[in-house]
Amino acid sequence: MLRFLDAGESHGKMLVAILEGFPSNVPIDIENINKQLQRRQIGFGRGTRMKIESDRIEIISGVRGGKTTGAPICISIKNKDYENWAEVMDFQKEYNEKITIPRPGHADLNGFLKYNLDDIRNVIERASARETAIRVAIGAICMELLKFFDVKFISRVVMIGNIEDFSYIDSYNEDLINKIESSPIRCLHKDIEKKMIKEIQIAKEIGETIGGAIEVIAFGVPVGLGSYSFYDRRMDYLISGAMMSIQGVKAVEIGNGIKSSKLYGSEFNDKIIFEDGRFSRKTNNLGGIEGGITNGMPIKVRLFMKPIPTTRREFETFDVHGNVVKSRYERSDVCAVPALAVIAENVLAYEVAKEMINKFAGDSLEDLLISFEHYINRVNRG
Amino acid sequence: MLRFLDAGESHGKMLVAILEGFPSNVPIDIENINKQLQRRQIGFGRGTRMKIESDRIEIISGVRGGKTTGAPICISIKNKDYENWAEVMDFQKEYNEKITIPRPGHADLNGFLKYNLDDIRNVIERASARETAIRVAIGAICMELLKFFDVKFISRVVMIGNIEDFSYIDSYNEDLINKIESSPIRCLHKDIEKKMIKEIQIAKEIGETIGGAIEVIAFGVPVGLGSYSFYDRRMDYLISGAMMSIQGVKAVEIGNGIKSSKLYGSEFNDKIIFEDGRFSRKTNNLGGIEGGITNGMPIKVRLFMKPIPTTRREFETFDVHGNVVKSRYERSDVCAVPALAVIAENVLAYEVAKEMINKFAGDSLEDLLISFEHYINRVNRG
Amino acid sequence: MLRFLDAGESHGKMLVAILEGFPSNVPIDIENINKQLQRRQIGFGRGTRMKIESDRIEIISGVRGGKTTGAPICISIKNKDYENWAEVMDFQKEYNEKITIPRPGHADLNGFLKYNLDDIRNVIERASARETAIRVAIGAICMELLKFFDVKFISRVVMIGNIEDFSYIDSYNEDLINKIESSPIRCLHKDIEKKMIKEIQIAKEIGETIGGAIEVIAFGVPVGLGSYSFYDRRMDYLISGAMMSIQGVKAVEIGNGIKSSKLYGSEFNDKIIFEDGRFSRKTNNLGGIEGGITNGMPIKVRLFMKPIPTTRREFETFDVHGNVVKSRYERSDVCAVPALAVIAENVLAYEVAKEMINKFAGDSLEDLLISFEHYINRVNRG
Amino acid sequence: MLRFLDAGESHGKMLVAILEGFPSNVPIDIENINKQLQRRQIGFGRGTRMKIESDRIEIISGVRGGKTTGAPICISIKNKDYENWAEVMDFQKEYNEKITIPRPGHADLNGFLKYNLDDIRNVIERASARETAIRVAIGAICMELLKFFDVKFISRVVMIGNIEDFSYIDSYNEDLINKIESSPIRCLHKDIEKKMIKEIQIAKEIGETIGGAIEVIAFGVPVGLGSYSFYDRRMDYLISGAMMSIQGVKAVEIGNGIKSSKLYGSEFNDKIIFEDGRFSRKTNNLGGIEGGITNGMPIKVRLFMKPIPTTRREFETFDVHGNVVKSRYERSDVCAVPALAVIAENVLAYEVAKEMINKFAGDSLEDLLISFEHYINRVNRG
Repeated sequence: MLRFLDAGESHGKMLVAILEGFPSNVPIDIENINKQLQRRQIGFGRGTRMKIESDRIEIISGVRGGKTTGAPICISIKNKDYENWAEVMDFQKEYNEKITIPRPGHADLNGFLKYNLDDIRNVIERASARETAIRVAIGAICMELLKFFDVKFISRVVMIGNIEDFSYIDSYNEDLINKIESSPIRCLHKDIEKKMIKEIQIAKEIGETIGGAIEVIAFGVPVGLGSYSFYDRRMDYLISGAMMSIQGVKAVEIGNGIKSSKLYGSEFNDKIIFEDGRFSRKTNNLGGIEGGITNGMPIKVRLFMKPIPTTRREFETFDVHGNVVKSRYERSDVCAVPALAVIAENVLAYEVAKEMINKFAGDSLEDLLISFEHYINRVNRG
Repeated sequence: MLRFLDAGESHGKMLVAILEGFPSNVPIDIENINKQLQRRQIGFGRGTRMKIESDRIEIISGVRGGKTTGAPICISIKNKDYENWAEVMDFQKEYNEKITIPRPGHADLNGFLKYNLDDIRNVIERASARETAIRVAIGAICMELLKFFDVKFISRVVMIGNIEDFSYIDSYNEDLINKIESSPIRCLHKDIEKKMIKEIQIAKEIGETIGGAIEVIAFGVPVGLGSYSFYDRRMDYLISGAMMSIQGVKAVEIGNGIKSSKLYGSEFNDKIIFEDGRFSRKTNNLGGIEGGITNGMPIKVRLFMKPIPTTRREFETFDVHGNVVKSRYERSDVCAVPALAVIAENVLAYEVAKEMINKFAGDSLEDLLISFEHYINRVNRG
Repeated sequence: MLRFLDAGESHGKMLVAILEGFPSNVPIDIENINKQLQRRQIGFGRGTRMKIESDRIEIISGVRGGKTTGAPICISIKNKDYENWAEVMDFQKEYNEKITIPRPGHADLNGFLKYNLDDIRNVIERASARETAIRVAIGAICMELLKFFDVKFISRVVMIGNIEDFSYIDSYNEDLINKIESSPIRCLHKDIEKKMIKEIQIAKEIGETIGGAIEVIAFGVPVGLGSYSFYDRRMDYLISGAMMSIQGVKAVEIGNGIKSSKLYGSEFNDKIIFEDGRFSRKTNNLGGIEGGITNGMPIKVRLFMKPIPTTRREFETFDVHGNVVKSRYERSDVCAVPALAVIAENVLAYEVAKEMINKFAGDSLEDLLISFEHYINRVNRG
Repeated sequence: MLRFLDAGESHGKMLVAILEGFPSNVPIDIENINKQLQRRQIGFGRGTRMKIESDRIEIISGVRGGKTTGAPICISIKNKDYENWAEVMDFQKEYNEKITIPRPGHADLNGFLKYNLDDIRNVIERASARETAIRVAIGAICMELLKFFDVKFISRVVMIGNIEDFSYIDSYNEDLINKIESSPIRCLHKDIEKKMIKEIQIAKEIGETIGGAIEVIAFGVPVGLGSYSFYDRRMDYLISGAMMSIQGVKAVEIGNGIKSSKLYGSEFNDKIIFEDGRFSRKTNNLGGIEGGITNGMPIKVRLFMKPIPTTRREFETFDVHGNVVKSRYERSDVCAVPALAVIAENVLAYEVAKEMINKFAGDSLEDLLISFEHYINRVNRG
């Protein structure tokens, strides 16, 4: 059973994660993980912080001589900005300037009340989306495993503000990848890309922020992950919880879930086909999950992200004592949708890897592969 | 920590659930639970089975003299149809007529391959939405607890096919409840109700099925449930996983998540207000969850349900051996959206109760209430 | 991942358990499970209740046509005594004769205070060792799976009061089994058996109860279950928690743990041997667990059971109001050590099955076996 | 719900742990934690490594301005020896000298086979008892919380080889603490201490190792932790699993569990007494746990530790290829029993804190204390 915990504040020394239950003998190329971190930081609409931090992981344990050992994998990402924050964040000495003006749309007020704090700083630091950096690194490690099973990921922006690109992607190919990766906004189509960038620029100019939607697709996931046996084992349970937990996400759609009610049952159904001894589906409206279990089609998930709540525009609000005050601005991005795409890709990689390990077990990569190959042969006919 | 497991096949003897970690001294009125089961069974568009089954729970353990004891609560719901299925479902003697034609859109083929079965019947029986009856009963027990904290629920249908009713509900009131409960389709507005029913009738006439969307709202949930400390403790993580795991659901939206990208940050934000010593929000675009934590506003969730995949229309498909065959029809509803609303209400009740118990602990109702009242006093000012 | 919950009161309608995560296609012979229940009920020293209850399970779900289906397995055991207790145990109507005199040595007082109860009956009913019947049934189902991996169990009484039989068992054989199973006290040696029975008779005559110790051995467990990766994955963690949780157990010893400090390191060590391409150990002082992982030798565990606290001898005590009162007697056994042996066997079967499923995964028996056989070939040389 | 993960190799860069679910506002004095680490390293019989490492923790997250914030607490302990091992342990570059001779009594062979490794070094590094340093630090943080509830710990050595000191401790006092803490072997009685030291010296002289037993007592634990509701919630389940998982422990005894069968029921029972409005027990044979729940008496646990398997004495064994070879020596202690006492104390602190948080909840220290005080008032009479 794969599991992890992570820790770390947005302006603390570092982010840390411990990943337990990962099989042995998986080659880990640290540059692949750093590449995912870098992909997360690129994107039109990010603030200045992205230039400060150029994230790189350090491997603390669980990998030796280039391969995992079966022991817990501990990784960290330094916060390069920490040196400027050392006094504020000191673990021992109290910092006297407390933040008492909560920002709407953030955890500020709720966290302050829940944990009985005297400084909103303590909420901001942990609730920050900075944490997604370490979740990306965890997912990137999982991708190193999934490679051996030919599981691959695509993610892209499908909406910014009023600009949409719900075009259909049906297979993985390098040309597609190149188009997306070379776009500053992870948009597949050049013409739409321009409009999306415009949308962000306008928001920025007027001191606003803007949201959107992304799509992430996992190709090569075998039939049979997840189970209908109990609800917490369903693949859609696992995926939607993990996805909704990413900061800023307010809706999760699997396949064409939202539009599904516009179609009749026999129109929406993905017909079963059988070719070359393999079962498949004619279409993929279900996004690869049928009855809580993967059906071998690409897993397709869309996430809707609200605009980042912190705007430069000032407004009247209340402090924690109930006094009317001017709003407080904390450095922030204008649009984080492109980053969300990369984060979602890596979060999905973790969930898929977890279920692969659950299903095929084996404490080593070799055992996993043998169990996997046997299974694939069993479910294919002839 | 509240947890449960459930078991039972669609045409087996009964559905059973065990709920562990429920506080002692909570009065349980079995008729309240039966009422929830009944609400689930009503609704225009349901098939004939709903007339066969008039679900009632039996309490097997954990309740004595009208109150919970702190021991695990075991409940069951008899399948009245079982007598006609005893031979098919016999636990010991093999039934020779195997089902080998998988229905697209169900777990049939995936489950058959995953579990290496020789009869799709074994998939159908457990993957069936019949299981939601016992999940409703579990939620209904949680509602008995939540009453003491003035947490109340509303659920309604907001879309059937192309007919939408995304009107805004901002507070709980009996008039609203009466309108919804008296509608055969859980629609708030009489004029829209007619159109929705028409939509279902048309689908039925042409041998089709139809999907839609529902909205469920929990009123009275205190600020501070869930946490940003780690992603699996976020309230949106818990809710969206549980909601997406309900059979047929393909998208989960919290607050106005899907439309959020059409608004700028300062438009979407729910402004903080302070009145009579209590913090609140001017609007509720976030659906009561801010930074992964409840903010004291109503929790508002929308679920999008695909059309039921089993249609009376016949089509060509493949059997498990890869042969081309005519599709197989298994008795089914035309539209289960109204039922989904009731199910979602009870599933949400479980998640809220779980977090209430996590946050306020106490092994007895009395301890919980004292801890709760102290907290409410603490987070309110003056 | 295998998991279960159970429910039910000692004099309630029935005991129920739900077992989730069990592989499909495992043949279940209900008589094998009933046989384990029967073994638990036999034994010199048991009270009259054992004659009232002749436990048999009912299979409610998860098994069809003689085999598991992959769905949750729900089983129940009726309490035949229930008819005499229906009024006392009524879930709705309050029973007016409350128990207010706690018995020392039981959960009575602690449970009463913890759950803020007004009747100790509610504690007695759930804390009772009657629950072990359903734990035995769960273990017995696991034994149906373990058979396919040639995992077999022996359990016996090694101490009653002052009479000890710490003889050494090094292998599984039918002769040994027959001797133990035919002894009314599960004692391997006829001469010691007599003394043990005498010890119980004396206790009975003077209105006392008596404890002892048992040994349970699992043969055929492969090398590699459990892990040193994190403490909660160690096989000794899993086993000792489960064993200590059986009512009455106050000490758990793995291998020759207690005597180990009387030997030097090189005396205690189980030397590694290599024969016919297989690694093994010369001795088994470690009881089959080395560094938290099974080493392929038999798992050997000893449990020490305190005397049952309820004695016929009357004494002065306090009621829940703090008044001095005469002690209260609730029907009880004189010695439950032989039953403990059978319970421990089945509890161990569950823990071993759980780890086998963790390690070899596969959703079906066939997948598990292929993964297992591959592994066994891998760890053996030549 | 409190939980943690730890990571790190014996000769890696550092040990790391992440503790999640810890309440906010708990003052953390880092020197208290370092003091526990130091106590673990002292003790007659330890090897030279203890002089190399003088463990100190670094706090990476979750503590700010001297208090916990509610965010995950990440701590690390540097391995000072790492600089000498950097090449061996390099995460990227393979180290060519592989270890292929497994040491009996360690996880060496089992881990090697399980994880399909080519170097036993990978097993040694993680299975090492070096990990207990970080478990001590986690427990020490929990002690900072438990202070506020007046929960205090004593631990001492009660057996080394053939020398025993099973004297009875019935209350916490500073004099006792001083005697134990000033003994190089954590022995309460000077005369026995000498004999124990002698026992270790002899073992050392002949190239052997030696085991023993320790006792750990938690004073001030309130009635009502744990539950009989399900076996995995019993306090004895939690404690015995955690204790048995400490490297080298092979038996766990709660109260006078092992000797209990030498007494009749009415002799062994801890009679209930009632004084000054509080329930208590006359004796403490049960070690503070009755029916799976704490009864308010001190929790008393004894652990039996096998001799460390690595001896200087050389012997014939097998390498992983099945060849006969000379045994391999890896630096090791002669006796680690005094260290075990300190480790057990801190491991127990974690389990007690976990259950305190489960029972009294509250996200902040203040909420916890209020819930606790209310409860204590409730369970006491008048």
